Amino acid sequence: MTLDRIRVVLVRPKSSGNVGSVARAMKNNGVSDLVVVAPRRFRRFTADAMAVHATDVLDGMRLVNTLPEALTDCHWTLGTTCRPGLYRSRTRTPREAAEDVLSVAANNHRIALVFGPEDTGLSNRDLAACDELLSIPTHKHYASLNVAQAVLVCLYELFIAGEPPAAERVRLATAERSELLYDKLREALVAIGFLPVQNPDHIMLAIRRMFGRARMEERDLKIWLGIARQIGWYASGGREMAAVKKARGAKLR
Amino acid sequence: MTLDRIRVVLVRPKSSGNVGSVARAMKNNGVSDLVVVAPRRFRRFTADAMAVHATDVLDGMRLVNTLPEALTDCHWTLGTTCRPGLYRSRTRTPREAAEDVLSVAANNHRIALVFGPEDTGLSNRDLAACDELLSIPTHKHYASLNVAQAVLVCLYELFIAGEPPAAERVRLATAERSELLYDKLREALVAIGFLPVQNPDHIMLAIRRMFGRARMEERDLKIWLGIARQIGWYASGGREMAAVKKARGAKLR
Repeated sequence: MTLDRIRVVLVRPKSSGNVGSVARAMKNNGVSDLVVVAPRRFRRFTADAMAVHATDVLDGMRLVNTLPEALTDCHWTLGTTCRPGLYRSRTRTPREAAEDVLSVAANNHRIALVFGPEDTGLSNRDLAACDELLSIPTHKHYASLNVAQAVLVCLYELFIAGEPPAAERVRLATAERSELLYDKLREALVAIGFLPVQNPDHIMLAIRRMFGRARMEERDLKIWLGIARQIGWYASGGREMAAVKKARGAKLR
Repeated sequence: MTLDRIRVVLVRPKSSGNVGSVARAMKNNGVSDLVVVAPRRFRRFTADAMAVHATDVLDGMRLVNTLPEALTDCHWTLGTTCRPGLYRSRTRTPREAAEDVLSVAANNHRIALVFGPEDTGLSNRDLAACDELLSIPTHKHYASLNVAQAVLVCLYELFIAGEPPAAERVRLATAERSELLYDKLREALVAIGFLPVQNPDHIMLAIRRMFGRARMEERDLKIWLGIARQIGWYASGGREMAAVKKARGAKLR
């Protein structure tokens, strides 16, 4: 699996809760290789609370002392930064890089995504150890993402890029069936005096347009056919007849 | 601004920390309209800690008792769910919906994105109040995102869809300048005996390919021209001459 070759490296994280949130974001996107470099402290209990059902990612987590140790067996290293600066102008967004990352990973190479401490981000020295830089687009008023949010966006972009587009499993109504419905609905709305007998199609067109935008399914169509039938039944005096029958003590319909 | 017409609605959130994380994710993407429906409890202090520099979003937050109250002035309501189920098969991903959302918002309509409680997600009754459903693609082994992560992905997709693609501000080297460099580099590498005089171009091609993939900038090119010149200087005996001059007490170069 391509995503098995994606490693998340957290450099000097301050908060164990964030490490747990990162683990969850990883599992949400099918990634499990987590390496943490020199955490200021690490409390498993706190991390577990945020990982929720991703404590298995924390079980497999490795702790190392330096960034190069975390990267030794990696073939391509992408560091994340939210600050433009010297030699940072060639950063790509995670979306721009996703296809390359997956194609390199599919070719049996290991790829590290490196994330810095919560307060300062990766240092210039950390970034020098990276082959390329990634930057997540954010609003200029607040560019700094929480570290688990940054991990999520990067992995989400990889996950999405690797997924074949989901086939829509719904059964849309055919044009023939739709025309049948519009006929029945027109008849019913004319019968109750909602549509004018002379020119019913003006308002019908609005209804057709709305149902069209909704890309009506066959099961929706069945419901509307039932509604049209019921309106017709009312209009043809079915309600009064039923009331009379009920008054007589006969069974309804 | 289009993003001013996007409202985030949190239904019965349990954790004040998550509300704060949501505020941060909103500000990261230029969204500020936050409505919280019947939080189980709300501690501003806890929320502030996670909001970091987005406490202004919490200042503007409104608390209401029911979901319909949160939605009264909205024109289009998108509920989020991670569970497929009855009448949930027509869900779109945030990416699929982003263009529509922005175009409706640009037309001066207010749009609500609705997120459920951490443990259960939106109830069927909550979802019934929504016009359409959104579902964020996730790995099947752990489909449930943290609520702030779900908010981030939705707003990030809107933010990205609304941003014009960033123009690359780098100045790439022209082909003419690149050829000049390759000439100088070939000469230098032949001069130090690294490239064979007879057929230097085989290895030069590998170098050209690598520099090409790197999309060399003019400033990179200047560095390499300097390196080629320096190699040539060494090869032509510059080093020995300098050593001799130094030994004589003359100034270097």
